[in-house]
Amino acid sequence: MSLDAVLARIDADLDDATSRLFELLRIKSISTDPAYTPEVAKAADWLAEDLRGLGFDAEVRPTAGHPMVVGHAGDGGPHVLFYGHYDVQPVDPLELWHRDPFDPTIEDQNGVKVIRARGAADDKGQLMTFLEACRAWKAEHGSLPCRITVFLEGEEESGSPSLVPFLEENADELRADVALICDTGLFGDNTPAIVTQLRGMLQEEITLTGPSLDLHSGMYGGIAMNPIRVLTKVLAGLHDENGVVQVPGFYDGIPEISDELRAQWDGLSFEPSAFLGPVGLSEMAGESGRSGLEMIWSRPTAEVNGIWGGYNGAGFKTVLPSKAHAKISFRLVAGQDPLVLRENFRVWVNAQLPPDVEAEFVGHGASPASQMDTSAAIFEQTREALSEEWPSAAAFVGCGGSIPVAGYFKEILGMESVLAGFGKDDDAIHSPNEKYDLSSFHHGIRSWARVLARLA
Amino acid sequence: MSLDAVLARIDADLDDATSRLFELLRIKSISTDPAYTPEVAKAADWLAEDLRGLGFDAEVRPTAGHPMVVGHAGDGGPHVLFYGHYDVQPVDPLELWHRDPFDPTIEDQNGVKVIRARGAADDKGQLMTFLEACRAWKAEHGSLPCRITVFLEGEEESGSPSLVPFLEENADELRADVALICDTGLFGDNTPAIVTQLRGMLQEEITLTGPSLDLHSGMYGGIAMNPIRVLTKVLAGLHDENGVVQVPGFYDGIPEISDELRAQWDGLSFEPSAFLGPVGLSEMAGESGRSGLEMIWSRPTAEVNGIWGGYNGAGFKTVLPSKAHAKISFRLVAGQDPLVLRENFRVWVNAQLPPDVEAEFVGHGASPASQMDTSAAIFEQTREALSEEWPSAAAFVGCGGSIPVAGYFKEILGMESVLAGFGKDDDAIHSPNEKYDLSSFHHGIRSWARVLARLA
Repeated sequence: MSLDAVLARIDADLDDATSRLFELLRIKSISTDPAYTPEVAKAADWLAEDLRGLGFDAEVRPTAGHPMVVGHAGDGGPHVLFYGHYDVQPVDPLELWHRDPFDPTIEDQNGVKVIRARGAADDKGQLMTFLEACRAWKAEHGSLPCRITVFLEGEEESGSPSLVPFLEENADELRADVALICDTGLFGDNTPAIVTQLRGMLQEEITLTGPSLDLHSGMYGGIAMNPIRVLTKVLAGLHDENGVVQVPGFYDGIPEISDELRAQWDGLSFEPSAFLGPVGLSEMAGESGRSGLEMIWSRPTAEVNGIWGGYNGAGFKTVLPSKAHAKISFRLVAGQDPLVLRENFRVWVNAQLPPDVEAEFVGHGASPASQMDTSAAIFEQTREALSEEWPSAAAFVGCGGSIPVAGYFKEILGMESVLAGFGKDDDAIHSPNEKYDLSSFHHGIRSWARVLARLA
Repeated sequence: MSLDAVLARIDADLDDATSRLFELLRIKSISTDPAYTPEVAKAADWLAEDLRGLGFDAEVRPTAGHPMVVGHAGDGGPHVLFYGHYDVQPVDPLELWHRDPFDPTIEDQNGVKVIRARGAADDKGQLMTFLEACRAWKAEHGSLPCRITVFLEGEEESGSPSLVPFLEENADELRADVALICDTGLFGDNTPAIVTQLRGMLQEEITLTGPSLDLHSGMYGGIAMNPIRVLTKVLAGLHDENGVVQVPGFYDGIPEISDELRAQWDGLSFEPSAFLGPVGLSEMAGESGRSGLEMIWSRPTAEVNGIWGGYNGAGFKTVLPSKAHAKISFRLVAGQDPLVLRENFRVWVNAQLPPDVEAEFVGHGASPASQMDTSAAIFEQTREALSEEWPSAAAFVGCGGSIPVAGYFKEILGMESVLAGFGKDDDAIHSPNEKYDLSSFHHGIRSWARVLARLA
């Protein structure tokens, strides 16, 4: 089947594709605010209708929250599930937008054409790249190149409360050979990236109690143990002078990245100073001897995300507080078991407490890292397809954060995910004046057409 | 002159003395709340009138805030200045009082007769012990035993904003051979105590800035320096494992207490476990090898009174904060210069900062310790007088906190202060249901009569 004809059609149809995206962007599908619930439903309806126009057997499927959109089409070849989300972030603070967030337009931003609207990049613009690729393929070939399930969520920006139950209830219907997820970005401006490893997370909240009530430092200062003193000792011991985390067993079972992956990462010529400079930093703070990309993609971390105790108002209060608190999170990588580390952390803290000081722990999130099994052919096929479309060769990259849906697909449906997207660092997702480069939209559509051609 | 007759008169007059105290306690002289300004003035008027009845040349003296009461009487012998304060703390939370705080009465509390009212102990009951001793002396002998200046403040519970200017403007009038201050307590229930050393204070607020804005730990965790990590390292180094403060020069110039004073303190048989038990602690946290009384009276401290940074709300936010903060105070003893230590502390902190992290310091209070020169005869005379009145011999003790007026008397008027008072630990000063034992009031009056006899 001819890819060139499909690509030519995509080029010729770009204005209409943009108009269709604008229709979707005009729908105020803010999932976290109940005032917009009808708008969220409207976006779901619009997408189901659009999918039906492409020959999908598509439905809006109710959940306890906002609905899912599910559509099936094609047959033969591999079965892929495409995931995106049609809900968007709130628009506050509205006064910082220079135009109505739900009145999309093409603007010139520093000489680059951008689509300006809430959701342009996250994730309506991205999910439409796949639907437009399907549209062009269908128009040119009369049918899709393989069996495709489209699965669109309306609660991604509000914690995905219905996602796991929906996957569990509809596992047989949704299970495919592999998932395609379009909710990530390019590396830099021109290098397509397939995220094959995502860090996990362990969150612990700790409260140390010393005296049974707040004490006056004139009366008790010196003789009474201050829990802040103990907390700072414990937390100061989280890292050694080389940035190595000191919780016992923390690094057990973590594999080194392959030589092949290391070569790809080295090829990305990541500049720590260019990454850190814009946030006012100059030196890397992670483990000595590790590269910057390893620090954020393939090495685990320990960070104190919050600390508090005693008096923090204006002026001074010479209190010895009864309690001191901290919230500590660990970004985890493949090989680490969050529940084992939680236990190790608690034992390690307790072993350091002096008499009279007790620790109370509250466990928050605990999710393992995701490591894709890239041996499935589609990973390399996608990488080759993207490399043909963009100026630089595509790379398998890591992601310092979490994209929970990839973990659920693995855990509940037993399938790997190919995470590929075309966002840029300056897209201002979740912020005022969100944009999506018109070239991201255009080449994103062409990229998926190339991927479909390889699946055919 | 006969002391016995004065003591007998005091015993016989106790009911009337209590009635006079009740009159003063009924006046709602809360200095910090402007709604009570007329009541504060009324208390000043009441005291000036009472002093005139004792033969004092007494006046209510205006200040920029609440007035001072100053009265002069007697001649010959040493010149002593008596200090007390007639303002009281607010009464909130009122619902925790079991009776009207300004309707004084005698109650039975665990078999002990107590005067219940706001200000009963702090400081109206205490200051009236001296006035009643003068009253009995005058009644018995027709005149006071020596030259006495009474100086009563109405702003002690609201930071004494007018005290220093008033002392400076009226230095010649107020300067005496020695000050008597009645605003402290017994040691335990039965041991009279003269406070001869008070710790000073140095207060520092520190803000560490790492990245120029809050960062997401998914994107930056590992590679970016977290200022909380640096703050905990710095603060964890404030004490070594023996509780010794590590700021350079911190202990320079601090004298050991004399053998005589050590013997007195040993005689107080201070039980650390009895002191710490009620607040939920069992072990002393100060410098190894120091006694409990040394830790709270004669050794300096470093305490973190507040620490904060990042997210401290419900749930979790995986932020790497831009800033981390702490409030740190040092209780100082004789020999330490607060301004030198402030500089040492800042240099010490700065020397520990990694690249990309900067410290900003805000200096709050800085006041040296007070160490009385107890070689003046009146110190030993007062100690002997109190030892005769009470079951246990009086001791020269320290005070972990600060009583600023003693420092100002030394600094501005060049006179030492004899700090003697009769409060008990369970008087609930500053709290609901404040009380003053009737025996504290009675023996307090008798105590001052004995002191006056020695001054005669």
